[in-house]
Amino acid sequence: MASESQYIVPVVLSGGSGTRLWPVSTPERPKQLLSLTAKQTMLQLTISRTEGYAGASVSSPIIVANAAHAPIVDEQLQAIGIHDYRLILEPSGRNTAPAIALAALEARPDDILLVMPSDHIILDLPAFHTAISRALPLVSEGLLTTFGIEADGPETGYGYIQMGADLGNMVHKVERFVEKPDASTAVKMLAEGKYVWNAGIFLFRADAYLEALERHRPDMLAAVRASLEGAKREGLHILPEPQSFAACPSDSVDYAIMEREAHVACVPVNMGWSDVGSWDSLHAVSTRDASDNAVRGDALLLNTKNCLVHSDGPRVTLVDIDDLIVVVSGQEVMILRRGESQQVRRVTEAVKGAKPATGA
Amino acid sequence: MASESQYIVPVVLSGGSGTRLWPVSTPERPKQLLSLTAKQTMLQLTISRTEGYAGASVSSPIIVANAAHAPIVDEQLQAIGIHDYRLILEPSGRNTAPAIALAALEARPDDILLVMPSDHIILDLPAFHTAISRALPLVSEGLLTTFGIEADGPETGYGYIQMGADLGNMVHKVERFVEKPDASTAVKMLAEGKYVWNAGIFLFRADAYLEALERHRPDMLAAVRASLEGAKREGLHILPEPQSFAACPSDSVDYAIMEREAHVACVPVNMGWSDVGSWDSLHAVSTRDASDNAVRGDALLLNTKNCLVHSDGPRVTLVDIDDLIVVVSGQEVMILRRGESQQVRRVTEAVKGAKPATGA
Repeated sequence: MASESQYIVPVVLSGGSGTRLWPVSTPERPKQLLSLTAKQTMLQLTISRTEGYAGASVSSPIIVANAAHAPIVDEQLQAIGIHDYRLILEPSGRNTAPAIALAALEARPDDILLVMPSDHIILDLPAFHTAISRALPLVSEGLLTTFGIEADGPETGYGYIQMGADLGNMVHKVERFVEKPDASTAVKMLAEGKYVWNAGIFLFRADAYLEALERHRPDMLAAVRASLEGAKREGLHILPEPQSFAACPSDSVDYAIMEREAHVACVPVNMGWSDVGSWDSLHAVSTRDASDNAVRGDALLLNTKNCLVHSDGPRVTLVDIDDLIVVVSGQEVMILRRGESQQVRRVTEAVKGAKPATGA
Repeated sequence: MASESQYIVPVVLSGGSGTRLWPVSTPERPKQLLSLTAKQTMLQLTISRTEGYAGASVSSPIIVANAAHAPIVDEQLQAIGIHDYRLILEPSGRNTAPAIALAALEARPDDILLVMPSDHIILDLPAFHTAISRALPLVSEGLLTTFGIEADGPETGYGYIQMGADLGNMVHKVERFVEKPDASTAVKMLAEGKYVWNAGIFLFRADAYLEALERHRPDMLAAVRASLEGAKREGLHILPEPQSFAACPSDSVDYAIMEREAHVACVPVNMGWSDVGSWDSLHAVSTRDASDNAVRGDALLLNTKNCLVHSDGPRVTLVDIDDLIVVVSGQEVMILRRGESQQVRRVTEAVKGAKPATGA
């Protein structure tokens, strides 16, 4: 059981540098550092996600981020009044298993880590808080726990979790993790009803995570430990020693630990979650007008339906347009058909081959 | 007959400030001062239109422009090596009849004025030159002559000219001028075959024009004459006296003279003419790629057909898009369906009511 001195420590992973929201998302300012669905950036929304949680004490957060983003992360945290945090600055990206190990080693052994990607949306916070509370008793006993999103469609873009026996409190044993499926497999899993999406959100004791890492990837744990022993500490910043950290193998927490552990729990939850992994999914989770247009920035829409407009400056005027994605950012204007935002990959590949955009 | 001392004087009317090519065309830089179909601006293309004409001597041009555009007109003429010209700077706009009167009073009485709007496209210059030559004998005898564009569709956006008897050299007597027709009237006229579009291009002796103006609008002639008697002359610039010019009634050459004259000639000609009066007509007259896309500026088109892209800076990327007009200019991005560019009027009206575009 949770002792009275136990705390939940939010661990926010901000290492991503996805290009699926190009041209707005770039390596210099990836998705989590952008305001996409609200005035707050996705990092700010994530940091604020435990506010009002009443099921346990929540201590100050640990953020693990790309060292290049240190100034903007500090700025965004302080802009929303967060001054008490630890920012671990990765000298290089080694995926989520080492990133979480950095946080677990920084925390106290019996701290309960709430691991959250920094670039997801959760619209129903009470549902999230309830799920945390349901998981807490098993987590306190040492079980690694993941949150499973109740699937509302045969998505092929996510990994799935097959749930087994109910361990109590509507927390289930994990039968197995399933890689991103093809369309027909996704349809079958949806029909069976025992599958949830793997959202990459976890709850576990720091010592339980480190013990599992020691069991499955002692090389990884040794490298991360060495990088922290040689770390520089400057105010709120922790800078792991670069050479040891670079020597750490790169792997996700799913592959390195979760899929190898015999006893992992899953809390199924329906909480308005999205990974905002494409312009289409941003359209889906955004507030929309009566004609289903989602707009950020200055736009003038005349007889226009089902469009996403995202502009960082210029006014975008659409007349008699349906089902278009229009993104204006810096010296780039991108126009796609709604439902085809996976085409961004074609664009970023073509852009690599094209001359750089010119102009004012 | 033309005496040996007679010259053709190109008279280029640059007073327009149309908004049909918003957001690129603005009162500060109207259509004629823009590069829309070529590297040269429409004014530069117009000034160069008599180059290589062999049917008569061509003297240096007279340009009649809005006084506010003096620096940019000078810059554009000198950029293409035109240093010998007269630039009459209207202190206010009084439509084409007074503008042409300014040029006619500046020219010698027996100069033959080739009056050309500065914002039209003529792709087939040899055809234009042949039409001028066909008109010259009658023009030398004092006939006012207009060029009639052989209609290739039932356009409702132009005025028409009904042609009568052949006066020789395939020059016809004008039976009547017809206002912009409705669609069914346009179809009827096209079927009858005796109608051509009124392009607003004229050829006449300066004295013939001034005599006709004296007959029909002596008030106009008196006001223009007074404004030139009080004009300031500074280098290549002629600045009519503002108060007299402001007192001049405003009217088009068609209404003030052509429709009132009993004897007007028309030279029908097929010369790849367009008034580039809309984004659609710009698409039609532009050089297009194999997928019928017309592009100016930096664009990346993936599986895209029948689009017009015009950007003054940012790169425009389109994926799987058909039949779209995309215009990027300053702080404005406008997207219309091809074939609907008359909707620009709705946009400019809506923009007047909207807050100004903001941004970088």
